[in-house]
Amino acid sequence: MGVNDEQQIRSLIDRWKEATIAGDLETVLSMMADDVVFLTPGREPMNKEGFAAGFRAWAGKMKLESKHDIKEIRVSGDLAYCWSHITIVTTMLADNKKNQRAGYTLTVFRKQSDGRWLLSRAANLIVA
Amino acid sequence: MGVNDEQQIRSLIDRWKEATIAGDLETVLSMMADDVVFLTPGREPMNKEGFAAGFRAWAGKMKLESKHDIKEIRVSGDLAYCWSHITIVTTMLADNKKNQRAGYTLTVFRKQSDGRWLLSRAANLIVA
Repeated sequence: MGVNDEQQIRSLIDRWKEATIAGDLETVLSMMADDVVFLTPGREPMNKEGFAAGFRAWAGKMKLESKHDIKEIRVSGDLAYCWSHITIVTTMLADNKKNQRAGYTLTVFRKQSDGRWLLSRAANLIVA
Repeated sequence: MGVNDEQQIRSLIDRWKEATIAGDLETVLSMMADDVVFLTPGREPMNKEGFAAGFRAWAGKMKLESKHDIKEIRVSGDLAYCWSHITIVTTMLADNKKNQRAGYTLTVFRKQSDGRWLLSRAANLIVA
């Protein structure tokens, strides 16, 4: 069961990445808990609405490529965490200007009563 | 049992803060897992030895005050997470120069086979 849970979380991370690259906000939102909290350096915690607003601000304006190197996933009951190294390269559609950022994330997932895992808390340490 | 686990984690956080302020590295090290990972913006992950080296670099050189505002603790089996807002004020003993930093942390704790909770993974988003 633990291995199956881990596979489900790996699949969630893959689908999150693919939906983000595709600019598919609805799919990304469906993979996070309603009470999700995103923590980033120097900013106040962001909720689901804040995430959606941020996503809409860049989607359609840039091409995004990312590499997600999962370092560890551990599961206990309905709780799991993952930490990863992420590299994000963005290319502005208007002028082809590229930007690369990289860093680590620590993410908490929770299993719902229907068995689905959702992202629930995330600390994002990615810097320019 | 969940409530008791949460109380133990709150106590661990209190004792971590007190030992840090006292410059008591051995006590702080006894509250973290041997395979602990600390993530901070723009730096490589830090292990137990790296933490100890960083601690020794400032201990005895400054007075430290901190405020730890716990926003949430959740426990499932032998895994728990906590996110908090932390404010740290340091005063250099040499010249009384003060520095204040603040930010959020997301921390993962694991329960050992003997029932003790230890800090195991931490993302620290505290900035100047």
